[in-house]
Amino acid sequence: MLRTHTCGELRITHVGTEVVLAGWVHKTRDKGGMMWIDLRDRYGLTQLKLEEGVTAPEILTAARELGREYVIQARGVVIERISKNDKLATGDVEIQVQAISVLNPAKLPPFLIEDDTDGGDDLRMKYRYLDLRRNAVRKNLELRHQMMQQARAYLDGNGFIEVETPVLIKSTPEGARDFVVPSRMNPGEFYALPQSPQTFKQLLMVSGFDKYFQIVKCFRDEDLRADRQPEFTQIDCELSFISQEDILNTFEGLVKHLFSKVKGLEITDFPRMTYADAMKYYGNDKPDTRFEMKFVELTDLVKGKNFKVFDEAELVVAINAQGCATYTRKQIDELTDFVKRPQLGATGLIYARVEADGTVKSSVDKFFNQDDLQAWATAMAAKPGDLILVLAGNPDKTRKALSELRLEMGERLGLRDKTTYAPLWVLDFPLLEWNEEAQRFFAMHHPFTSPKPEDIELIETNPGAVRANAYDMVINGVEVGGGSIRIYERPLQERMFKLLGFTPEEALAQFGFLLNAFEYGAPPHGGIAFGFDRLCSLFGGADSIRDFIAFPKNNSGRDVMIDAPSPIAQEQLDELQIQLQLKK
Amino acid sequence: MLRTHTCGELRITHVGTEVVLAGWVHKTRDKGGMMWIDLRDRYGLTQLKLEEGVTAPEILTAARELGREYVIQARGVVIERISKNDKLATGDVEIQVQAISVLNPAKLPPFLIEDDTDGGDDLRMKYRYLDLRRNAVRKNLELRHQMMQQARAYLDGNGFIEVETPVLIKSTPEGARDFVVPSRMNPGEFYALPQSPQTFKQLLMVSGFDKYFQIVKCFRDEDLRADRQPEFTQIDCELSFISQEDILNTFEGLVKHLFSKVKGLEITDFPRMTYADAMKYYGNDKPDTRFEMKFVELTDLVKGKNFKVFDEAELVVAINAQGCATYTRKQIDELTDFVKRPQLGATGLIYARVEADGTVKSSVDKFFNQDDLQAWATAMAAKPGDLILVLAGNPDKTRKALSELRLEMGERLGLRDKTTYAPLWVLDFPLLEWNEEAQRFFAMHHPFTSPKPEDIELIETNPGAVRANAYDMVINGVEVGGGSIRIYERPLQERMFKLLGFTPEEALAQFGFLLNAFEYGAPPHGGIAFGFDRLCSLFGGADSIRDFIAFPKNNSGRDVMIDAPSPIAQEQLDELQIQLQLKK
Repeated sequence: MLRTHTCGELRITHVGTEVVLAGWVHKTRDKGGMMWIDLRDRYGLTQLKLEEGVTAPEILTAARELGREYVIQARGVVIERISKNDKLATGDVEIQVQAISVLNPAKLPPFLIEDDTDGGDDLRMKYRYLDLRRNAVRKNLELRHQMMQQARAYLDGNGFIEVETPVLIKSTPEGARDFVVPSRMNPGEFYALPQSPQTFKQLLMVSGFDKYFQIVKCFRDEDLRADRQPEFTQIDCELSFISQEDILNTFEGLVKHLFSKVKGLEITDFPRMTYADAMKYYGNDKPDTRFEMKFVELTDLVKGKNFKVFDEAELVVAINAQGCATYTRKQIDELTDFVKRPQLGATGLIYARVEADGTVKSSVDKFFNQDDLQAWATAMAAKPGDLILVLAGNPDKTRKALSELRLEMGERLGLRDKTTYAPLWVLDFPLLEWNEEAQRFFAMHHPFTSPKPEDIELIETNPGAVRANAYDMVINGVEVGGGSIRIYERPLQERMFKLLGFTPEEALAQFGFLLNAFEYGAPPHGGIAFGFDRLCSLFGGADSIRDFIAFPKNNSGRDVMIDAPSPIAQEQLDELQIQLQLKK
Repeated sequence: MLRTHTCGELRITHVGTEVVLAGWVHKTRDKGGMMWIDLRDRYGLTQLKLEEGVTAPEILTAARELGREYVIQARGVVIERISKNDKLATGDVEIQVQAISVLNPAKLPPFLIEDDTDGGDDLRMKYRYLDLRRNAVRKNLELRHQMMQQARAYLDGNGFIEVETPVLIKSTPEGARDFVVPSRMNPGEFYALPQSPQTFKQLLMVSGFDKYFQIVKCFRDEDLRADRQPEFTQIDCELSFISQEDILNTFEGLVKHLFSKVKGLEITDFPRMTYADAMKYYGNDKPDTRFEMKFVELTDLVKGKNFKVFDEAELVVAINAQGCATYTRKQIDELTDFVKRPQLGATGLIYARVEADGTVKSSVDKFFNQDDLQAWATAMAAKPGDLILVLAGNPDKTRKALSELRLEMGERLGLRDKTTYAPLWVLDFPLLEWNEEAQRFFAMHHPFTSPKPEDIELIETNPGAVRANAYDMVINGVEVGGGSIRIYERPLQERMFKLLGFTPEEALAQFGFLLNAFEYGAPPHGGIAFGFDRLCSLFGGADSIRDFIAFPKNNSGRDVMIDAPSPIAQEQLDELQIQLQLKK
């Protein structure tokens, strides 16, 4: 090797050793006949020392020409540092340099290779290979590596078998938009890239593989909102001969294992909540349970006092922001603006303060007397110093707005600490959700999710009321994984397809292989998939997944570093027997 | 869980335990009031026992209606078997059944779920989910799983970091044909699926990641010969600050680790051979070194005896098939036909037998006297009983034909035992190969491979003579991996692109990101990629990779199970702003 040690390895015990290091020139200092070079690699920094009168003059001359990010090899002897650096693992020693050679010079990087860089997002993405040199980004990928190894260790250790499923599959109309790949050997036909290995993992269960996993790339051609990627990674799992309880336990185990091995955190509490309760108490199917501030419904309590907003509202619901009675008019106005933003669309925010003496002052004192307001305070368990925030209106919209307000208050109160983790399961999701635009039901999870046995009879009569054997794992308000117990009987799967608007012919054309497979001895089975990018960013304490992906794409789906996608040659199009037909 | 134990788990120590098993009905026997059911899952087989007078009549009745491959759950007590079955891990016990429930019935499978199935290839592929139930195929995937875990354990243990590189990348003209993916968000532009993560792993080296690996899907839109797949898996690795020697040692280590952990075999000998020697002694850059039978060149020895075939040949070369002097006329004719096949195209086969008395009889006795032939025998180290097989003609064609003949003789002599493994490195490949059709040089490995420093001066003057820092790992005549020390300096990379016929503009448009990256401090680096499907099939002792892939495609690139590729909707084409233009 071109080195004897890495730049993170040398300690006081190495003093006297002759070493060869290789790495990047991170910084140089040249002062009073002394020169120091911080040499960097992914393992750390080591200080090289050159000295007039000690180091050969030609080496000093060469060293003085080194620029930032030059790749060099240095030979020398480890010596003890006079002024030690506690912040550096190698800070007790330095290298008395005897030889330096430049392995490759470097132009000045377009931004600083430091934790706090001066590079903007666009520049960092264009020069991603330089951005990846920064500690912050490198550590994210090291974390991701660890997460992968530990996830596999747990699953392998629990009898799961890793099976690779195909990337070139078949386009299906259900779900998000597919990326497609024209087939040259089958002109006029296309492969699709998988949105998930769903049907394949179910077929593996039919095959008897029993416990399957894969850490696998999936693809969705959706308009990219911030923090979505066209290609993303899942930890994908499926098991046979299990109940929902087995799955919850197995994957609580996985996540506890990851927290323990990767973060050194022991997760003891893993509560479960029904979808209905999550919506009722948090207005959200992925509640952030790092803090309480649960919803309290005041609808019945507040009606009949001639306050039109409440009297006409289907739902009146409130949260208690503890200790916020001191909020100024201006702060309350901010909150009002927050809930009135177009994406939330609340018509206004009503508040009530519990004063130090226990009296309650509200923004609707005109309509409610002190007894009324005391009843509010009691319902909200509000104590002196607390601030009650009330929204009213259409239930779905109101819950959504209050959920956002709750998160905002959590943020303001410092209750959403990124180093605290509050995981839970959300259970009993509805099987279907009504789509106004399409005027039909869509599967809330996917068409292969089984209804709860006790709700099956409602499938045709009251589909919206059918609950599914479906579960999401939520951590800190982020859905990190979701899954379901699957349908494994052809007749039920056919009923489901019918409900989703498939004709029998369409169902057969798209999913005939699965319907057929169910007739050849399909075991009861179920599974889960974790959003791996998201899980990594959560473990890394970051909001964005982008810096946990080595080479991400921007919001237009472009890789600005390699400049993809790009036009292809006419001959390629001809071979594929397709041509462009660009709209004006 | 729907079971207390698997079907491979129960032993004599479990006698008396009440158990619940779940699995597939593999076979039933019903005889003289007794009934046995072989219940199967991926862990094994367990015998269930039902008995008139002991088992409840309704259970017996139900059991008699079970068909092959029904999925059932059975409850009962473990009892000792009277006639034990040594061949079965669970063969000491059986289950006295107390209850059976059918979890899912099954239609009669279209072929037998047995090691020796009656299903043809097409049928097995259409019902791959049933084929995967067969022991033989299931074990291949279990082997693959183990290989993956062990490969990662070794690489992780040696400081490699697993990084996922993108699947949606940029089409490049060099190499095989790309699969492309039209971009909806960037109309008229296409992504390409990676033929390998080559440039990304090099950028990771520029980023300082030092030691990278990934077990990754790669894609090539090539006409599929038997045993090629449009999507395949590589163990992909790259290292910085290393010499070729470090790479050879590291990956010898990987393969030794795999043999040891997966097969329980300790590989001690890992020879190295230059490309030149491989071609000279085996006529092949991936020699099967499980047996000797090296080429001996007789060109000089055999000229000038008026035998036109030899006199006019550029190369006369022979192998010694030991002990084959007894070959009959018919057998020799078979070998002659073998080398005269169009794909080999030899004009004929000359042979010489060493008789028991040491005299040599040849098919060209007219031209060569006994002294001449004795000289042949000496050159060939042929002893009484040996058969010398000689080919003559154009060097490349002749070597190729003799290489095939050598393998054929190895096969006939039983020298190619699938449980013996002979790995080696082939080194010092040529950098370039001339392509007659394109009338230019192509990179033999790829355009990023570095020339040997001592040959760099020949790049412009005698490109064909330049040797590369490139190496292949060969096991039993199969190239399982290959790699090179890369170019890491922009000027040399530019020279290389020029040699390959790129204009400077083309080089920039295609690989500008890499050329730029080389200017910002690129370390010396190199790597290797293993064909993982091939490696698994080799470890599994099989010739075909297909049964080591869960859901392979056929020779037309079709997945006949899911029926992909397939036509897509006009709306999908419209959204992508492309249309079909099918040739008649």
